[in-house]
Amino acid sequence: MGDLSEAVAALERLAESVRQLIDVTVTVAAPPATLAAATESVERVVAELRRFVPSPPPPRYQRPAPNTDPNDCFPYDLVIGRRSPLAPPIHFTWEAPKAIGRVRFGTPYEGPPGCVHGAALAGAFDQVFNVANVMQGVAGPTAKLEVLYRRPTPLFEELRFEGWQERVAGRRIHAVGRLLAGDRVTAEAKGLFVHLPPEDVLRMLAKR
Amino acid sequence: MGDLSEAVAALERLAESVRQLIDVTVTVAAPPATLAAATESVERVVAELRRFVPSPPPPRYQRPAPNTDPNDCFPYDLVIGRRSPLAPPIHFTWEAPKAIGRVRFGTPYEGPPGCVHGAALAGAFDQVFNVANVMQGVAGPTAKLEVLYRRPTPLFEELRFEGWQERVAGRRIHAVGRLLAGDRVTAEAKGLFVHLPPEDVLRMLAKR
Repeated sequence: MGDLSEAVAALERLAESVRQLIDVTVTVAAPPATLAAATESVERVVAELRRFVPSPPPPRYQRPAPNTDPNDCFPYDLVIGRRSPLAPPIHFTWEAPKAIGRVRFGTPYEGPPGCVHGAALAGAFDQVFNVANVMQGVAGPTAKLEVLYRRPTPLFEELRFEGWQERVAGRRIHAVGRLLAGDRVTAEAKGLFVHLPPEDVLRMLAKR
Repeated sequence: MGDLSEAVAALERLAESVRQLIDVTVTVAAPPATLAAATESVERVVAELRRFVPSPPPPRYQRPAPNTDPNDCFPYDLVIGRRSPLAPPIHFTWEAPKAIGRVRFGTPYEGPPGCVHGAALAGAFDQVFNVANVMQGVAGPTAKLEVLYRRPTPLFEELRFEGWQERVAGRRIHAVGRLLAGDRVTAEAKGLFVHLPPEDVLRMLAKR
């Protein structure tokens, strides 16, 4: 476990450095020669790391266990994953029966000037519900997602996502949620999910 | 213009190299020392480029002109932006009255095993509609987005987003769209947008 957690920590640090690189890439105004030198350095890192990419790649998901930190269930997720440079990441806590996600979105996620892109918010809600479903032990793929944008969501401010299961009817899971900037609700969402028994999910995972 | 297009091309190459770095970061299984060395190299690139980050950052949007390539309107967008490493990017063409977006999503966008994450698809539709609205000259922020996930959307396959304005009623813009993998519709979406006159958008932009 010592080696494993050392490797995990090293991967998380790499992902965080790549997040910073993404941020600087969308804000820099450097001479072409400087940009070309940076590109060459990045390409060298990519070439070095590619030597260590196994096929198939490392497992994408961890099976949730009781008292699991929800962040540990989705290490590579594009919303929550600490090992995914695409993820801000949103940091989740499970405050039963609610999934709570805290995040500040930076410049790479900008839509309207000074505001978070609607695309980032819609995507976030999908995973907010997914976390709530997984933590409740009744989860599965999204069938429908509806997002209402009530007012602009500010960039650079601490935001709070909340999502919870409203009701489960047969295999249909109905989830609802909202997004707060301070005490202002900036967006609300509803999701419909289809419960897949764990054995079906494991069968899908085995195909990887 | 020669210098400008050289800088733009250099930025696009940098963004593409960072995309490859993202891909390798979410698939690598290397010893901690190798990951630490990569992290240090990335941090050096970040430190070098940070010297060239102006405040405020470069303009986020280009004013759409007649016959504009839609990709040129959103250079830093997290869905379409060629200068955004977060963007796959989806490549858009304007086939009036439809915005057509072509893309293959790779491993960083994986949700269910072998499938594109619902978060990536929801976010993509928001911007598919935004492109359709901007190209029609009647655009503004998202009020509501609804996505129906009909069947799993495959990773690594060429996908085709289609989005168009269904009707404009006063300031309310109703858009609809769908996502195709080959001839299979894997998702459908509807969006409601609020038309903002260009002068209001420019006023928002001026605040940057």
